[in-house]
Amino acid sequence: MSNSILKEVKFDDKGLVPAVLQDYKTDEILMLAYMDKEALIRTLRDKKCWYWSRSRHKYWLKGETSGNIQKVKSICLDCDGDALVIKIEQVGGSACHTGYRSCFYRTLEKGRLKIRGKRVFDPDKVYKNIK
Amino acid sequence: MSNSILKEVKFDDKGLVPAVLQDYKTDEILMLAYMDKEALIRTLRDKKCWYWSRSRHKYWLKGETSGNIQKVKSICLDCDGDALVIKIEQVGGSACHTGYRSCFYRTLEKGRLKIRGKRVFDPDKVYKNIK
Repeated sequence: MSNSILKEVKFDDKGLVPAVLQDYKTDEILMLAYMDKEALIRTLRDKKCWYWSRSRHKYWLKGETSGNIQKVKSICLDCDGDALVIKIEQVGGSACHTGYRSCFYRTLEKGRLKIRGKRVFDPDKVYKNIK
Repeated sequence: MSNSILKEVKFDDKGLVPAVLQDYKTDEILMLAYMDKEALIRTLRDKKCWYWSRSRHKYWLKGETSGNIQKVKSICLDCDGDALVIKIEQVGGSACHTGYRSCFYRTLEKGRLKIRGKRVFDPDKVYKNIK
């Protein structure tokens, strides 16, 4: 694939780069996940976000199970070339497997983490067929 | 320090957690940097962002040299406990050592990275005393 970003991204010693996912309309930060070169190539090709799952050791098309895919609107690279910001349209309204809109649904308040926001879906129903 | 976030954060195998820095008013993403436990403790204590510099192997009070410190407004932790979003007031208006407001000043357009935005300061002047 001929794309200058593939040459500019500096993947870390595990071959990964962190990608920050941001809602393209509201600028809310929805999640942070990791791509290797192949996941970035697939993301550029499909205009849908692919990641490398560090826990499952496999490529992961976000929304593959839940239907909550992420349509890519823009991709930015940082000054050092080792982090991405991807603006997306979050299908289904929720990026988090817990059912919250954003993975960052816990905020520190007076020394304690408090849950903010409401669940968009019930994860027990969406992921019921996964062992 | 008694703070529940210190128990909840899962630092990686290098003892680090990525922190996404977001302007507390505009929600623009300004940079991504890494904290270890000590940097997070200092950040909570001072309400200014401290990082662990992976390249310089030292603690780094953002703005120590440039004066562009980052005043902490809120801290959110993600579902897995392995990423932070910190909303800040960026003193001086620029988070990036290159002089741009955001480190993410390059956007992919038609297969090429294009510079967006203007420089807020001239890095040669701000960092002129650093060898």
